[in-house]
Amino acid sequence: MKLVRYGDKGFEKPGLLHTDGTLRDLSRVVRDIDGAALSDAGLSRLEWVDAAMLPIVPEGVRLGAPVANVGKLIAVGLNYADHAAESGMDVPPEPVLFMKATSAISGPDDPIELPRGSTKLDWEVELAFVIGTRAKYVPLESAMDHVAGYMICNDVSERSFQIEHAGQWVKGKSHDSFAPLGPWLVTKEEVPDPQNLSLWLDVNGSRRQNGSTATMVYGVAYLVHYISQFMTLEPGDIITTGTPPGVGMGMDPPQFLWEGDTVDLGVEGLGQQHQRVVLV
Amino acid sequence: MKLVRYGDKGFEKPGLLHTDGTLRDLSRVVRDIDGAALSDAGLSRLEWVDAAMLPIVPEGVRLGAPVANVGKLIAVGLNYADHAAESGMDVPPEPVLFMKATSAISGPDDPIELPRGSTKLDWEVELAFVIGTRAKYVPLESAMDHVAGYMICNDVSERSFQIEHAGQWVKGKSHDSFAPLGPWLVTKEEVPDPQNLSLWLDVNGSRRQNGSTATMVYGVAYLVHYISQFMTLEPGDIITTGTPPGVGMGMDPPQFLWEGDTVDLGVEGLGQQHQRVVLV
Repeated sequence: MKLVRYGDKGFEKPGLLHTDGTLRDLSRVVRDIDGAALSDAGLSRLEWVDAAMLPIVPEGVRLGAPVANVGKLIAVGLNYADHAAESGMDVPPEPVLFMKATSAISGPDDPIELPRGSTKLDWEVELAFVIGTRAKYVPLESAMDHVAGYMICNDVSERSFQIEHAGQWVKGKSHDSFAPLGPWLVTKEEVPDPQNLSLWLDVNGSRRQNGSTATMVYGVAYLVHYISQFMTLEPGDIITTGTPPGVGMGMDPPQFLWEGDTVDLGVEGLGQQHQRVVLV
Repeated sequence: MKLVRYGDKGFEKPGLLHTDGTLRDLSRVVRDIDGAALSDAGLSRLEWVDAAMLPIVPEGVRLGAPVANVGKLIAVGLNYADHAAESGMDVPPEPVLFMKATSAISGPDDPIELPRGSTKLDWEVELAFVIGTRAKYVPLESAMDHVAGYMICNDVSERSFQIEHAGQWVKGKSHDSFAPLGPWLVTKEEVPDPQNLSLWLDVNGSRRQNGSTATMVYGVAYLVHYISQFMTLEPGDIITTGTPPGVGMGMDPPQFLWEGDTVDLGVEGLGQQHQRVVLV
């Protein structure tokens, strides 16, 4: 299934992308696409729905982030060997974790805000996944049982805020609009191998990132297992798994986003996103 | 007002501490003590309630964290000059921010879990405050308008997870039970000067921390202003402001918590907490 949330920001309704290409409304079936809907029971219930019977949503409607009420948005740093190299850092001996504020979550095609004082606004195409069932001290073998599905995340980053303003990356990862998610939450049965997906990102039509999750250092299953040793993952929590090479900070000379720039990005099977950079 | 949430974990009800010392039930007045209840309008409505008319809650009931549906739990590092010194670090040139997972939030007297593999479980008494109205690019002069009230936070930390496991402090700050909050959310009119409160912490009855928010480097108003430059603070978000000297990591030799240890802590006017360390 490809689940969506559509409508004005803050008033999104649940929906799904039908196999005929139309968007269908799920409001009469689930309250929202949240932790409860993403449990095994919740997803099973949705699988029984005859999408052809659901109301068609008019074309051109805004899409929001496909998950509501996200408790945690956890990001993994330096999780592709080549990206670590372009950042001038070693591949870490275990996953580097940081948080993005959940208030940074936005729809897949919403504008990216250029924060006041920003000089180093950067892009990061990433494979993100969402938790369906609670995970605490989960063994590697059963880690995938806790994953509900996958989506694209642009882990938008302000490098000056992240690195040059005293400690901890969260400061450069959390401005409003710094976490476009979607367009769809693709449930896991449609993604048999999350470690073999191509992913790409263009800035103003020029290819900047072009990679594959095959070169990810710590894969999805390991991340669920690993993170669950340090904190409890709850239904609706999102983990974004790091970016392949090609970010602006790694270019020679470095190149960053400015007002009016456009960013397009995609992950194989998960759709694509389009953002325009705007002043706040 | 002193607002509380009481009852079994996950099923807490809203309440308040009446001036006669009894706990009163607010279930018929507000749905919960959350962002909506903490807005100016929400708090004004509560101030009109005649507490003497509310049902009395039986004594001995468990208290939960006094705020529900917390979107972000933001912590400030090295925010007392003496604590920075004992950690072997300089006072940062601007506030150091990190996140604690909201899943770490627990009641003021709930046990602290000793995580598997923990060897350096540490304590940090802190003044925390909660946001009442949305704050984005807030000037220093009006920053306090966005604060709803104050509470105690024990910023429980596993120093090995925080420092010795590859990058970013969140890993050692986020285990379940690592953020006891409460007992009360004390609304700001009862705390005329948040920068002049004594705070203390005992381990097994011995005083370990004894300080005053007067020596905080970056005060509450500045933190609202500062953080709002990097991310949007939303109603119900909690910021915990850093700890004074006396943590276990700073002792000579360092001393850490183990199963059966007890921790008692308090902040002037905000009540006190009591925790026992248990194995998971």
